[in-house]
Amino acid sequence: MNVDRDIRAVHVGLGPMGLRVVKHILAERQGLRYVGAVDVAPELEGKDLGEVARLGPCGVRVTGDAARVFEETRPDIAIYTTVSPLKQFLPQTEVAIRNGCNVISTCEELAFPRFIDAGLTAKYDELCRKHGVTMLGTGINPGFLMDLRASVLSAACTDVQRVLITRRMDATPRRQPFQKKIGAGMDVEAYRKATASGAITGHVGLEISMNLIADALGWTLDEVRVSGPDPVVAESPVSSEHFSVAAGQVKGTIQQAVGIVAGEEKIRLDFAAYLGAEPSYDEVALFGTPEIRARVTPCWHGDYGTVAMAVNLIPAVINACPGLLTINDIVPVSFKSGNMARFVSQGS
Amino acid sequence: MNVDRDIRAVHVGLGPMGLRVVKHILAERQGLRYVGAVDVAPELEGKDLGEVARLGPCGVRVTGDAARVFEETRPDIAIYTTVSPLKQFLPQTEVAIRNGCNVISTCEELAFPRFIDAGLTAKYDELCRKHGVTMLGTGINPGFLMDLRASVLSAACTDVQRVLITRRMDATPRRQPFQKKIGAGMDVEAYRKATASGAITGHVGLEISMNLIADALGWTLDEVRVSGPDPVVAESPVSSEHFSVAAGQVKGTIQQAVGIVAGEEKIRLDFAAYLGAEPSYDEVALFGTPEIRARVTPCWHGDYGTVAMAVNLIPAVINACPGLLTINDIVPVSFKSGNMARFVSQGS
Repeated sequence: MNVDRDIRAVHVGLGPMGLRVVKHILAERQGLRYVGAVDVAPELEGKDLGEVARLGPCGVRVTGDAARVFEETRPDIAIYTTVSPLKQFLPQTEVAIRNGCNVISTCEELAFPRFIDAGLTAKYDELCRKHGVTMLGTGINPGFLMDLRASVLSAACTDVQRVLITRRMDATPRRQPFQKKIGAGMDVEAYRKATASGAITGHVGLEISMNLIADALGWTLDEVRVSGPDPVVAESPVSSEHFSVAAGQVKGTIQQAVGIVAGEEKIRLDFAAYLGAEPSYDEVALFGTPEIRARVTPCWHGDYGTVAMAVNLIPAVINACPGLLTINDIVPVSFKSGNMARFVSQGS
Repeated sequence: MNVDRDIRAVHVGLGPMGLRVVKHILAERQGLRYVGAVDVAPELEGKDLGEVARLGPCGVRVTGDAARVFEETRPDIAIYTTVSPLKQFLPQTEVAIRNGCNVISTCEELAFPRFIDAGLTAKYDELCRKHGVTMLGTGINPGFLMDLRASVLSAACTDVQRVLITRRMDATPRRQPFQKKIGAGMDVEAYRKATASGAITGHVGLEISMNLIADALGWTLDEVRVSGPDPVVAESPVSSEHFSVAAGQVKGTIQQAVGIVAGEEKIRLDFAAYLGAEPSYDEVALFGTPEIRARVTPCWHGDYGTVAMAVNLIPAVINACPGLLTINDIVPVSFKSGNMARFVSQGS
């Protein structure tokens, strides 16, 4: 691309995550310019995108008519921040694909779509190739903290037998809705009811992260055991700006996923978010040659990390070969177990 | 590539690093098979590669006749572990390139060849493209520990103002030649003479790592200030299996590189290897949004890490687009500063 011309972007979906991305791009990025914005909410129709993001006007009007936007602007990249379920998400992207526009999205299930629906993934992979566009699901978790980071570190190992990833998040400085979501201040019984009814769902990316790691290293998962969300019970009182938790009440959530290959535990993902988690960190432990621990402190803030990934990866998505890709296609660097020829693309 | 057929490899250069790679591949890898081995040493001519590596015979004979090996075997990948200076290295690879064979090498200067010689790099990039092959310089340092690891972590940042990377290596468990190389047990005056005469050179990859980080993040370095190798003087006696160091003597080496952009320090690389370094670690600190520290413990062992990178990246090199690439082309994931359109390839 000629450096004289900006990357031209259309944004689709102006919910809380979408507005975070829009704000960041408008306020802090150069060489990446919005030429269109799409949202189905009637109250946003015709409004200026910059004003919707509570910045000054940017000259781009929001509309519900996605087809017209893509046909008229022919953008380089569409940034989708709409829905999480893959089956709802993929049909939304057809209008971009058929207009030759690459797609990047924070849709969690798009991070490893084959795991969710192999048939649908193959169909959209073919559609992307046919129109010469690349589609990628990205974010910090899944997509970075509990998968990519471990895969990349494993590239400097001559052997990896087991992977253990821990996210230990201190929820104290987070927003009130996040603290509420992890059950802070609830009684244990109420928490159990809330998880049973689906009112508390916990972090949704663990199985996707598990599959991303296994795919990168070449392990075939025979079984994935998932537990939680379970309550983390306060042993002594703890409080935040938003909640006061008595001893015996819930201060947060813990979840686990274990990946089994040929009867052996190969991958363990351990996710916990609670008030007063000290120290807070994100740790990857690789057991192999060498055996190392890589600890990030403090634990990475999810919201900003997802905004960062969705924006920083735009050039990589535009440059990549066509298809519905995963982060393992973009970053093909990891320990390669077993038959190495499996990792060579057909046609190479 | 059909999984039924192995990746076919030729090894060039059977010095200590080469033999480590050969041993690892023969003993521990599947789906990657040597079909040829080249070394200029007359005493190796005709010997079995497996026996040279002190394993059982593997049916591949070592020869000095590289041209014949490449013409007869037409391999997928050539693994070069020969020399460090780029100007000596690149001409050695012509025989592989002209026979349509991809090249991966532990040649340190190949990790960011543009910095060493832009003209020669352009010439070989064109030669690679003409013959449809990919060439990559890889290793753990440069190529991973003090560059790639920081670049990849920065992808989850919405802003990066400054990068600080520290390698604090405990030399106690390392081989005698390594301990000798860092000056363990020398008097300070003798150490100074040894660095002045070039008998002690220190770690050679700092400026290459500096350039790799700047390239990934899009910073143009105005100046790089390099200091050392300087002696780390023992305050109290310290010893290893190989050396006893009295207080006041040298227990190891420290080196630093600082990268300046528009008058500001943006990158600092801090390398130290000495007896009794406790704790030993590899740390990346990113100052931006968010501000994080990522510490690997214990510090990564260089020799095994380089073997791992040279082998684990072979499928990525075979799959990649033709050209003389760097690890930033293989892993295009990092914080992208300034004009984002600069990171989009011509023709995308």
